Amino acid sequence: MVQIEQDILSHNNCFAEANRRFFAERRILALNFVSSPGSGKTTLLVKTIEMLKARYPLAVIEGDQQTSHDAERIRATGIPAIQINTGKGCHLDAHQVGHALEALDPPEGAILLIENVGNLVCPAAFDLGEHAKVALLSVTEGEDKPLKYPDIFAVSDVMVLNKIDLLPYVPFDVAQASDYAVRVRPGIETLLVSARTGEGFDQWLAWIERRYAACVAS
Amino acid sequence: MVQIEQDILSHNNCFAEANRRFFAERRILALNFVSSPGSGKTTLLVKTIEMLKARYPLAVIEGDQQTSHDAERIRATGIPAIQINTGKGCHLDAHQVGHALEALDPPEGAILLIENVGNLVCPAAFDLGEHAKVALLSVTEGEDKPLKYPDIFAVSDVMVLNKIDLLPYVPFDVAQASDYAVRVRPGIETLLVSARTGEGFDQWLAWIERRYAACVAS
Repeated sequence: MVQIEQDILSHNNCFAEANRRFFAERRILALNFVSSPGSGKTTLLVKTIEMLKARYPLAVIEGDQQTSHDAERIRATGIPAIQINTGKGCHLDAHQVGHALEALDPPEGAILLIENVGNLVCPAAFDLGEHAKVALLSVTEGEDKPLKYPDIFAVSDVMVLNKIDLLPYVPFDVAQASDYAVRVRPGIETLLVSARTGEGFDQWLAWIERRYAACVAS
Repeated sequence: MVQIEQDILSHNNCFAEANRRFFAERRILALNFVSSPGSGKTTLLVKTIEMLKARYPLAVIEGDQQTSHDAERIRATGIPAIQINTGKGCHLDAHQVGHALEALDPPEGAILLIENVGNLVCPAAFDLGEHAKVALLSVTEGEDKPLKYPDIFAVSDVMVLNKIDLLPYVPFDVAQASDYAVRVRPGIETLLVSARTGEGFDQWLAWIERRYAACVAS
């Protein structure tokens, strides 16, 4: 089993490397959004797109087991989106993303937003060639998730706590969540947002723009 | 890959068959709880245990990638619980459950509650020998989940919509969720509960007791 796992991952890593070259050549910032199902990834993306689309070329890859609901929500913003249905699969892989890139053909200097399958386990192991994984956690899910699903937080550069408009109605300790995330990923930043109301988006957009500036300068 | 998948699943099915025999011999009702991370499986279990423990022998198997938080929460109710840490694994398998059964040694006529790893994809494929899968969906996750993650709802006998105390604060269409679930699993029942407040537990406990009666009579 270990051998099989190594083969699958090394196969994936070849494709991830090709995606990374593609991003470097076009100076594209690629972000890979990971979370539980229902944490609000698509709503975060839609709001983020609305706030950035006047200033940057944007493109989106959507991953789900089934349906093209999410890509349709993205396309309603006027931004191109490709939906990948993974069928039985529990994560996106670099090969799928490579094919989507051919179809999307994002322009030089774009920001590419990749929404992974909602899953706090499997996407951790699969490098898509992205610059950073963004782990989304909704405050309705409980602050213990970084400890219970450590692998995904350990490979993410930022934890975005979403649905903070619900904080008055749920038991959730923000400081504790942030502390747990730092335990599994020293130095990880925590940002607080409500993708529904737009609260906290100043800091979230500033984070993206810092990463974009670093990517374009490199 | 298809061959490997078939080998893994057929290996799992042998152990599931052994678990099923174990349950039949002891007239144990076994329920396998599946959901996204943070849907409230453990809170549902704790409240269910408090309401049933005076009348039935109970035992719990807890699955998580890491930590034994959930088993500790269960043991605080006075009920025996075994924690299985799956490490890199994204679901419980029947072999792990078989070992946990040896350690738990649940008595004749017990109700066994198995909390799977929080994941709407992988646990769908793995029969643990249980009588029924119970799919939990929190109303904060959006009503589209049965369509986006159809496999898990297709193998579940009931969909428990949790956190209904939050319905006033989130956009969630209960009838639509129920309709989507029926599309992927014709005849699936939808129950509404709040594991935090106890609302809806009359119907939920009645569902368990009907399954228990059927199991003991068989």
